[in-house]
Amino acid sequence: MSLAGPGPTNTPPAPPEGGLRTVALGGIGEVGRNMTVFEYDGKLLIVDCGVLFPEDEQPGVDLILPDFRAIEDRLSDIEALVLTHGHEDHIGAVPFLLRMRPDLPVYGSRFTLALLEAKCKEHRQRPKLIEVTESERRTVGPFDLEFFAVNHSIPDALAVALRTPAGVVLHTGDIKLDQLPLDSRLTDLAGFSRLGDEGVDLLCIDSTNAEVPGFVTPERDIGPVLDDVIGHVTQRVIVACFASHVHRVQQVLDAAVKHGRRVAFVGRSMVRNMGIAADLGLLNIPQGLLMNLDEAVNLPETKVLFVSTGSQGEPLSALSRMARGEHRQISIRAGDTVVLASSLIPGNETAVFGVVNGLVRLGANVVHQGNAKVHVSGHASAGELLFLYNAIRPSNVMPVHGEWRHLRANGALAIRTGVAPENVVLAENGVVVDLVDGRARTTGRVEVGHVYVDGLSVGDVGESTLSDRLVLGEGGFIAINVAVDSTTGRAVSTPTVSGRGFSDDPKALDAVVPLVEMELSRTEAEGITDSHRIAQAVRRVVGRWVAETYRRRPMIVPTVIPVSYGQAGTTT
Amino acid sequence: MSLAGPGPTNTPPAPPEGGLRTVALGGIGEVGRNMTVFEYDGKLLIVDCGVLFPEDEQPGVDLILPDFRAIEDRLSDIEALVLTHGHEDHIGAVPFLLRMRPDLPVYGSRFTLALLEAKCKEHRQRPKLIEVTESERRTVGPFDLEFFAVNHSIPDALAVALRTPAGVVLHTGDIKLDQLPLDSRLTDLAGFSRLGDEGVDLLCIDSTNAEVPGFVTPERDIGPVLDDVIGHVTQRVIVACFASHVHRVQQVLDAAVKHGRRVAFVGRSMVRNMGIAADLGLLNIPQGLLMNLDEAVNLPETKVLFVSTGSQGEPLSALSRMARGEHRQISIRAGDTVVLASSLIPGNETAVFGVVNGLVRLGANVVHQGNAKVHVSGHASAGELLFLYNAIRPSNVMPVHGEWRHLRANGALAIRTGVAPENVVLAENGVVVDLVDGRARTTGRVEVGHVYVDGLSVGDVGESTLSDRLVLGEGGFIAINVAVDSTTGRAVSTPTVSGRGFSDDPKALDAVVPLVEMELSRTEAEGITDSHRIAQAVRRVVGRWVAETYRRRPMIVPTVIPVSYGQAGTTT
Repeated sequence: MSLAGPGPTNTPPAPPEGGLRTVALGGIGEVGRNMTVFEYDGKLLIVDCGVLFPEDEQPGVDLILPDFRAIEDRLSDIEALVLTHGHEDHIGAVPFLLRMRPDLPVYGSRFTLALLEAKCKEHRQRPKLIEVTESERRTVGPFDLEFFAVNHSIPDALAVALRTPAGVVLHTGDIKLDQLPLDSRLTDLAGFSRLGDEGVDLLCIDSTNAEVPGFVTPERDIGPVLDDVIGHVTQRVIVACFASHVHRVQQVLDAAVKHGRRVAFVGRSMVRNMGIAADLGLLNIPQGLLMNLDEAVNLPETKVLFVSTGSQGEPLSALSRMARGEHRQISIRAGDTVVLASSLIPGNETAVFGVVNGLVRLGANVVHQGNAKVHVSGHASAGELLFLYNAIRPSNVMPVHGEWRHLRANGALAIRTGVAPENVVLAENGVVVDLVDGRARTTGRVEVGHVYVDGLSVGDVGESTLSDRLVLGEGGFIAINVAVDSTTGRAVSTPTVSGRGFSDDPKALDAVVPLVEMELSRTEAEGITDSHRIAQAVRRVVGRWVAETYRRRPMIVPTVIPVSYGQAGTTT
Repeated sequence: MSLAGPGPTNTPPAPPEGGLRTVALGGIGEVGRNMTVFEYDGKLLIVDCGVLFPEDEQPGVDLILPDFRAIEDRLSDIEALVLTHGHEDHIGAVPFLLRMRPDLPVYGSRFTLALLEAKCKEHRQRPKLIEVTESERRTVGPFDLEFFAVNHSIPDALAVALRTPAGVVLHTGDIKLDQLPLDSRLTDLAGFSRLGDEGVDLLCIDSTNAEVPGFVTPERDIGPVLDDVIGHVTQRVIVACFASHVHRVQQVLDAAVKHGRRVAFVGRSMVRNMGIAADLGLLNIPQGLLMNLDEAVNLPETKVLFVSTGSQGEPLSALSRMARGEHRQISIRAGDTVVLASSLIPGNETAVFGVVNGLVRLGANVVHQGNAKVHVSGHASAGELLFLYNAIRPSNVMPVHGEWRHLRANGALAIRTGVAPENVVLAENGVVVDLVDGRARTTGRVEVGHVYVDGLSVGDVGESTLSDRLVLGEGGFIAINVAVDSTTGRAVSTPTVSGRGFSDDPKALDAVVPLVEMELSRTEAEGITDSHRIAQAVRRVVGRWVAETYRRRPMIVPTVIPVSYGQAGTTT
């Protein structure tokens, strides 16, 4: 592999004449915010534009966006955005990109665009949507695009090939090779083989499950398991899964029909997405099966099944509320069965098991992928990746969609199928990959940071704010407030010392007040009148005291308010 | 099972005449801070006294202790503390218990007591230690104790049986049934069978792996895998594992010897514990194998192996520093191999994979339980638990050491072996279980909370402080400071509004200052002079503004400093 370490640090040279440039602005070295920018002859084509969900070290952040800085001066050069499928980590950041380029043409399949349209509506945007289907070709600027059917954990997913004079790139998007897909829509391995005959110069390929040996079980095999579980329940059934997993929901509905249960969708995104899927004919809901939640809760417990969001333990989701006994309409009863027909995304374990334990504590039987085959992954395992490499026979490979461990494992698979090690490019976000004369090489790096969305704002929360939040979250703060005469530096109020997030003990900070008073006397005696200098002195005293007394590191926040005698005097 | 829901809420009645009372003060509904209190005839016997490590919702907390309130008025009634083995979740809270009862006799095996002694030394305590071995019997007050050898992921673990006139209790401690243990010290299933013949009235049994079908692979089988991995490395090898896993380390040392590598221990607890193990003859370190770290780093890379702490991704550990390129002595080079010969404790996934990705990014090959059989659990899987139930044939079962999902699964196994469902007691921390006339029933509940250690203090950080920390960690705070004339309520300083952990934008809060000033004019005009009422008014205005403008919820901290004219006046 061409990259053992973190890669180049230099500013990239100008794009090579007649070459194709590839830069991921997100999605490499992480699972989320997928976004790859291709450049040929001064024109850009973007594949996907998703969000990343924050981790512990990014407290309070709602979403993380790809860093658009590398393209913000090139907006008019962007020919199009191509979306491979409708998951949040591929479409979630589109509204933020559209704010910069509202007229950007967006290509995608029917279901993908329907989900995007619903999302953009919430942002009051009406994007320019161009629907494409598998096997279709489109010319967009210098890029000759061909779309291929792929299967994944959402319907209507596509891979995209870019033909340029510099060579052919195939971007798989998220992909697996389910040979018995529920909708009979196979990943177009025949098409990939044909493209491989033609010659693929660069393959950007899903790395998520590259470490997992073998093959993903067909989605179809979950049906009998769900059927068996649901068939044995003598009370209520609640099935939680991803709100976009139409095929999973279809199998739940089929089992409900078979066992005489009516169905209610629980959770806003589940209701919305399944409505869209049904409208587009991707989900078959038999007449009379569906009820709204308020009615469904009154059905006999053997006659109802709820399909809910919350399979990742999201604290505000319907399922989490049920586990805490706080859901407005659904109370878990001993003997109810809850099925988590879902993955366990790394990082969510504590939250998910928290929900499981809450449900078990209330007496529910909880079925999950740890004790029954109620989930299969949407991403190709190593065995399937080998099929892809052997069909496509790429000259150069750039693993995408994964953490470093996944990228490395995927690169190793490529090499085992005969790709030259020096042509496997492990390029993290921002690393520039130039394809020239059939060889892909890293040539530099553009700056790519984390762009945080917190509430209504994008980008104003940065590393400095997060670092303060981490300090405050670990140790709280101690505030010291005092007013001083701005002329003499003398304290004109008794200093108050108070903590938040520091201690439950109301007297915890009493002992430091005399130390602060002594310090204020000292600064006054030394003739210090500058409120910042006084504040610094106070911070030092309190910080040292708390470290010695408690061995803790709260934030120390001294505020010295200068009061001018004249100003106070005017109140007489 | 006798308990489908969370169990009784009533204050327990007085202990039944001639009955045996059991209360877990920790370890049930969680994995950690194991502590079970047995009471007979007014006398108490405690089994284990461990710590729990905090989760995300307990920020800044170092350790969580069992709640001693239920025994703090009964200290002189405690006959003894029995330790089953030397893991932190079984011995970590002993120094805190000893602060209340320094003369408490502590029973345990040789290695367990050696680890405890080292820990108590750090707390400047010299506990009263009473060494026991397997098959030994001791009478402690009304409790006739018998100890049984068990195997686990640390040497010298014991189960303990308590014979009382009310019946016989067996507490397994942490247990598995490795049939080919490295030290040939089998779990004493024969002894358990004999006890079963006599009749076990209550079995307290490890639930950790009750959800996992089958049997744990023998520890011994890891040796060849380590040997194979280490034998193929042409550069440095770093093996990380638990610092108390003597048998794992032994197998690493054996492989090092075989492949001509010398060994250095990295990390304070690894150095300390392996020293103790070697002194007690539990770890065989061939002459000349061990080097200190400073020398070892200068050896040729094919001639050295490091055994390190940090297998759980602890951010300050040696391995995490290496992954960040910040370790003082060891720099990871492309081609080095790192083996995580360890479990992945739920909740640590993000941290552990963060370390793995950091190492891979630096070019290391990382071997872990996901891609090689380099770890086996220390806790019995379902198959082994069935052996235990069938050997012991208990009348009543109380699953311990696990979250609710584990307890439930363990209870179900008991029932499948023939234990009457109503005799399986799922009793979370604090639930009182009384054994009377051979039947165990829950009869009430004592209050059991989380006792947090943060820095040097125990217990002053409680739920209110943690809740403040969570708010501060999510959104930071906005402080508004103003001095007012205490007589007129008039502002005598310009109000300052500043945020920490709120925004990187220095102007983010500028727009609210005029609103605060308007509000201060209003309160003055209304004749409000009370600083708390003024502060409340300011909080309302700022809180509403920030919610509308940013859709965020920082903590709002208004400070109104009353300045009396007379006081200010004296400065002239």
